[in-house]
Amino acid sequence: MSIFTKIITGEIPSYKIAENENFIAFLDINPNAKGHTLVVPKKEENKLFDLSRDAYKDLMDFSYTVAKALEKAVPCKRVGMSVIGLEVPHVHVHLIPLNKMADIQFAKKVKLTNEEFVALAQSIAAEF
Amino acid sequence: MSIFTKIITGEIPSYKIAENENFIAFLDINPNAKGHTLVVPKKEENKLFDLSRDAYKDLMDFSYTVAKALEKAVPCKRVGMSVIGLEVPHVHVHLIPLNKMADIQFAKKVKLTNEEFVALAQSIAAEF
Repeated sequence: MSIFTKIITGEIPSYKIAENENFIAFLDINPNAKGHTLVVPKKEENKLFDLSRDAYKDLMDFSYTVAKALEKAVPCKRVGMSVIGLEVPHVHVHLIPLNKMADIQFAKKVKLTNEEFVALAQSIAAEF
Repeated sequence: MSIFTKIITGEIPSYKIAENENFIAFLDINPNAKGHTLVVPKKEENKLFDLSRDAYKDLMDFSYTVAKALEKAVPCKRVGMSVIGLEVPHVHVHLIPLNKMADIQFAKKVKLTNEEFVALAQSIAAEF
């Protein structure tokens, strides 16, 4: 069971932003930049392009909705998207408010307090 | 007119992989990894999430088709996807055959000869 499935089942807490029958979006707790969000299909699949075309398109559609809320809530030049998956074998779309190239390089991280994460998740969720 | 529009109109040559009425896919000439491909809407738009939901979903659908061909043609652990756009203000989806995290960090680049680019584009195009 992946760490994301544990978040989906509630075994591990998360700063949730949005959820529907098939997908969940929550804040990355080791963010590249403030507002860095993960969008995850509830059905555990390892690789993005092993999803059926329909499941992939539904994931991208939900990610679009999350990104639009994110760009309203978090000031940035634009929201970037990245799907890698070399570390956690459960498909996840990174949506990252970008101001500079380093924000999407997964090399430098920013620290937020619990209170900051809670307020941030609420401010993004409020834009849906 | 963006550099990608110049590629679309043929003003600048490219190693083309696939094309339809609305999108084109060609090799990145400064690739992170062998097979690094760009998928670009022919209609010039700056930001991914400024595309209409339908145009965005069509772009993602075409990118899925390209990624499936890419993973057949280029050995890798998985195909990664990234949309950044801080440098060229014309939406482009990076599809990158990944073997390690550095392949999607846009920090190290690989060099290919013209002959290698031509053969690579042909081998990917053959998988459609």
